[in-house]
Amino acid sequence: MIIVLKRDATPEVIEHVAEKIKGAGLAVHISKGKERTIIGAIGDETLLSSISLEALPGVESVMPILKPYKLVSREFSKEGTVIDVNGVKIGDTELQVIAGPCSVESKESIIACAKQVQAAGAKILRGGAFKPRTSPYDFQGLGVEGLKLLAEAKKATGLPIISELMDPRDTDIVCQYVDIVQIGARNMQNFRLLMEVGKAKKPVLLKRGLSATIKEVLMSAEYIASQGNSQIILCERGIRTFETATRNTLDLSAVPVLKEETHLPIFIDPSHSAGRWNLVAPLAKAAVAVGADGLMIEVHPDPENALCDGAQSLKPSKFSVLMDEIRMVAAAVGRTLAAV
Amino acid sequence: MIIVLKRDATPEVIEHVAEKIKGAGLAVHISKGKERTIIGAIGDETLLSSISLEALPGVESVMPILKPYKLVSREFSKEGTVIDVNGVKIGDTELQVIAGPCSVESKESIIACAKQVQAAGAKILRGGAFKPRTSPYDFQGLGVEGLKLLAEAKKATGLPIISELMDPRDTDIVCQYVDIVQIGARNMQNFRLLMEVGKAKKPVLLKRGLSATIKEVLMSAEYIASQGNSQIILCERGIRTFETATRNTLDLSAVPVLKEETHLPIFIDPSHSAGRWNLVAPLAKAAVAVGADGLMIEVHPDPENALCDGAQSLKPSKFSVLMDEIRMVAAAVGRTLAAV
Amino acid sequence: MIIVLKRDATPEVIEHVAEKIKGAGLAVHISKGKERTIIGAIGDETLLSSISLEALPGVESVMPILKPYKLVSREFSKEGTVIDVNGVKIGDTELQVIAGPCSVESKESIIACAKQVQAAGAKILRGGAFKPRTSPYDFQGLGVEGLKLLAEAKKATGLPIISELMDPRDTDIVCQYVDIVQIGARNMQNFRLLMEVGKAKKPVLLKRGLSATIKEVLMSAEYIASQGNSQIILCERGIRTFETATRNTLDLSAVPVLKEETHLPIFIDPSHSAGRWNLVAPLAKAAVAVGADGLMIEVHPDPENALCDGAQSLKPSKFSVLMDEIRMVAAAVGRTLAAV
Amino acid sequence: MIIVLKRDATPEVIEHVAEKIKGAGLAVHISKGKERTIIGAIGDETLLSSISLEALPGVESVMPILKPYKLVSREFSKEGTVIDVNGVKIGDTELQVIAGPCSVESKESIIACAKQVQAAGAKILRGGAFKPRTSPYDFQGLGVEGLKLLAEAKKATGLPIISELMDPRDTDIVCQYVDIVQIGARNMQNFRLLMEVGKAKKPVLLKRGLSATIKEVLMSAEYIASQGNSQIILCERGIRTFETATRNTLDLSAVPVLKEETHLPIFIDPSHSAGRWNLVAPLAKAAVAVGADGLMIEVHPDPENALCDGAQSLKPSKFSVLMDEIRMVAAAVGRTLAAV
Repeated sequence: MIIVLKRDATPEVIEHVAEKIKGAGLAVHISKGKERTIIGAIGDETLLSSISLEALPGVESVMPILKPYKLVSREFSKEGTVIDVNGVKIGDTELQVIAGPCSVESKESIIACAKQVQAAGAKILRGGAFKPRTSPYDFQGLGVEGLKLLAEAKKATGLPIISELMDPRDTDIVCQYVDIVQIGARNMQNFRLLMEVGKAKKPVLLKRGLSATIKEVLMSAEYIASQGNSQIILCERGIRTFETATRNTLDLSAVPVLKEETHLPIFIDPSHSAGRWNLVAPLAKAAVAVGADGLMIEVHPDPENALCDGAQSLKPSKFSVLMDEIRMVAAAVGRTLAAV
Repeated sequence: MIIVLKRDATPEVIEHVAEKIKGAGLAVHISKGKERTIIGAIGDETLLSSISLEALPGVESVMPILKPYKLVSREFSKEGTVIDVNGVKIGDTELQVIAGPCSVESKESIIACAKQVQAAGAKILRGGAFKPRTSPYDFQGLGVEGLKLLAEAKKATGLPIISELMDPRDTDIVCQYVDIVQIGARNMQNFRLLMEVGKAKKPVLLKRGLSATIKEVLMSAEYIASQGNSQIILCERGIRTFETATRNTLDLSAVPVLKEETHLPIFIDPSHSAGRWNLVAPLAKAAVAVGADGLMIEVHPDPENALCDGAQSLKPSKFSVLMDEIRMVAAAVGRTLAAV
Repeated sequence: MIIVLKRDATPEVIEHVAEKIKGAGLAVHISKGKERTIIGAIGDETLLSSISLEALPGVESVMPILKPYKLVSREFSKEGTVIDVNGVKIGDTELQVIAGPCSVESKESIIACAKQVQAAGAKILRGGAFKPRTSPYDFQGLGVEGLKLLAEAKKATGLPIISELMDPRDTDIVCQYVDIVQIGARNMQNFRLLMEVGKAKKPVLLKRGLSATIKEVLMSAEYIASQGNSQIILCERGIRTFETATRNTLDLSAVPVLKEETHLPIFIDPSHSAGRWNLVAPLAKAAVAVGADGLMIEVHPDPENALCDGAQSLKPSKFSVLMDEIRMVAAAVGRTLAAV
Repeated sequence: MIIVLKRDATPEVIEHVAEKIKGAGLAVHISKGKERTIIGAIGDETLLSSISLEALPGVESVMPILKPYKLVSREFSKEGTVIDVNGVKIGDTELQVIAGPCSVESKESIIACAKQVQAAGAKILRGGAFKPRTSPYDFQGLGVEGLKLLAEAKKATGLPIISELMDPRDTDIVCQYVDIVQIGARNMQNFRLLMEVGKAKKPVLLKRGLSATIKEVLMSAEYIASQGNSQIILCERGIRTFETATRNTLDLSAVPVLKEETHLPIFIDPSHSAGRWNLVAPLAKAAVAVGADGLMIEVHPDPENALCDGAQSLKPSKFSVLMDEIRMVAAAVGRTLAAV
């Protein structure tokens, strides 16, 4: 940690700061320049978290040197993590595509959709059972009934399934049905929920919050990992910016940055960021080109009548065409996508 | 709802959209201009939430006319809501100030702090027992023990207390101790938690999320109100923008906008938005001038040694000076603050 | 234009608004719903720009229906514009790559760099002569001398050249040397400068401002087109968001959105948005996959000693590898890149 | 400057970075920690601007210690700058209010408006002659004719006048008429224009750009000061964020931050940030409470028929009421406003 003191910091002030740092168990290096005195705190920076260095008199700014995340950092594991979900490898050379409807609506429709996305090359089925909705008056999902329908679709196709967990009280029931637990963007900093899925030891797909920095995404992943669960997939799904032409701004730069910072696999959800189905295909191809390990795409047999997010859902026929296009882009960047 | 069709929309396309709207139970008004055809859907717009109008062929854009919130809207109640918390009136001509430490640390310190903020004119005591922290390695609060210490401070001073609820499983225990339940910024769209505090019928202070629009804040309040609890205080605490000179950007314009849109009282938290104690005083005065109904301010007897957020905490002596200054600004805008 | 009136709008208020619209030469359609009265203004919306409809009593909101840009809109020309710069076609199936140093530094280095980027497949040479710098104490470019050196590099290689125009007073001299005039992000709404390049009839590359919406980019292009110059290339170069891990957030979603809205070619500058050379390659490939018509990439023979933006400049050898990779992604999405 | 090296930085890499810094004329201090090696560059940091330290192999991050602005910094002058404009003191205990229409429309209206705002206590008259408009089809201002009408209003009232300069070619003519030159938000980084007003030696009001950081505002002021003109008023007028309920988000926190960083006076423009007249009064009072030195407010005798920005203009009668309210808030925070 580097502590920059104010121009007029007296020797007493400098000594006071130095004593605080030493008291926390770190060594101190003081460097007096012409314009500023700088104190280097050498040792385990986390020990300083209980001291409010910025609150000390004479302190101008405090700059951490080390990353605040450890278990999920690239330094912790040079090798990329590969997660095995019922034989489907996530984080390997082969890209994986998660597809399915925004919310599970009926047995017939989810099984039909599962077969369609499987036929196009998707290896994991998505479907919302518990739905976070901005309005209390909107459809909130089928709940446990939705999980059961997903299980039926899994039985019919063999596809592993992913669904969202919104409430710590539902952890057991959700984990009983799904193969991957999804933590939604709005819950990325629901720390209690993160602890629960950390303990549950199921693979987790953690969506980036709408206004979460890359560092914060990694800190939330660290919460899960700190409970002993490192099977974490990070998923960028658009951030909130001033631009209103798209629902959110898909931050594809996050992929190469995250690849430097962490060993975890990175997915992209082009459906939620764009909010419009006709933007999904170009963004999906861009996601593959930029280096994502997989995609999460909304597909609905009848988008006009979808109970949620129909505007951003692809019809199965369009999804199938997109998968063919993705296969070509994947090959161009040295990745593969399952043949059909 | 206004539906704008694409330039080349055929009569069949127009008819298809119109049928969908009629099928949902609304009347339709079609207006053919030279450049665009526009369809007005007349009736209860919420009935359209199950139709993905944007997904229909030929639709260019969809513009809602009515507000999506009802119970919390100014149209629902022209009169401002006044919440009575053990005799302390929130939303009335008298401003209320909630003050206290970021987190409860010990019996002595919380009682001392309670007495100090009370002496300066604060009528409600804050203190964190369950703390949402970005890092799993930071101090997470004393939990139930912290709630008990707050109760001791209440007993010693008579001040009602407020503390944060993070987990639906803690609703009962938190409600047993506190007079106002706080929902933190990170949980503003934790819809399950909102439902719980809605059912709990305790006064709630709902903090605006870092990237929540004003409309979304109101929708979250609507979640609480939809469960029968309208004792809701909204609290602006800074939004996330590109500016890094302050931790967040305090959106004071939100106060007059919210005053137009809702009958609920509006508070401002200048401590969290600024992140630095020396910005708290000017922002607190500005909050009063812009029309806020109250303030939430962090005060710590010894900020240097605070277990969290020391940098933004005021010393009791500075808080006392600030309260005197606030009293003068309040008078200038036709409000009052308790005399000491 | 749709004008939504406040709930309590009286017949007099409605009449007053209607009269204003009629006075501007548009027809009026009034629709009285249960909750709101809505007025449709039918005709040329631009005639309403001189009336402050929002300022009228009883008006709640005003929603334009038509696009404010005309000449640059896709409706104006279904066919994409192809710009011919000395035989290099921009906006065609073949992608174009503009490459070169941030600023022109010497005759030897610019000629060497031109040859290197040409050898890798770039067909247009970039180089800054007039440099907009955040600090008055930083290197401001060689000015006219820089333009002359670019002309030497053009002579040596045959590559058309592009350089930035910052000041209307330099329009003639810059146009005398360059084949494409660049308008930088900071000048995207320097309307006087836009008028000048509109009159100059040279191809223009217009960079999106850091906080410009897509609509505003198109309005700035409309400024140029309104002066009779439709040879405009739009260039996304990153927008300003809360994320600080990259210098700016590259908004690749803007490409498919712009492709819907305008017939102009769209370029991507991955160097400025990322701010770091190691992010340039993945972002460049993503840009091609998402549908961009070309790229603008900083290449410097010796980034360590570049007078500006060395951190984001590629070495010629890395640029050459990138061009090979781009060629493969281009083929995967049905585009081509010049063979070498 | 602090340079943090990557974990695996070899002695050769460290040496290479150190040599670069020494070559630029600074001293080097190397500190090898367990996790990272850190290099301190001691001396004039501006000498390092020509080295791309981030581009050097082995460099992880570079942290400047010193502020990049000098002449405008609080360190340069502990005393706040007071600017005397024809006897009107800006930056003193007395607040100043600049008022008038968005654009000058006719002799009668500008003189009437000048008299009205003067009667309410405003001491400086604003009025746009050259107008930056997003659309080329909107009213662009009366140009030089507008400047002449402002001069007439000055003659009639004695009020000094301020108007915007958009083009370096207009510098002489604008300076001939106005007492304060305004640089608009869109031109905050039009560095050539900044140089011109720096040379012109007239008082300048510099508006913050919509997405400019506080540091960038100060760097733009430094451009002006570097040409010998330190009569600069900074003006916050709203920044661009995700919130759309107001046109922009007024960043009042910027006032106390700027007061720490610079000796220049700070103004607030509540009219442009809000975009709606009914938000102007609360924001104006908040601006005074937060410590601004003055306000810039749009007033129009007939907002409904204003040629631009009518929605945000106050009627003279409402402006007069607001001035009385401001006078009370000013007194509450130890400032004054001219009596009427």
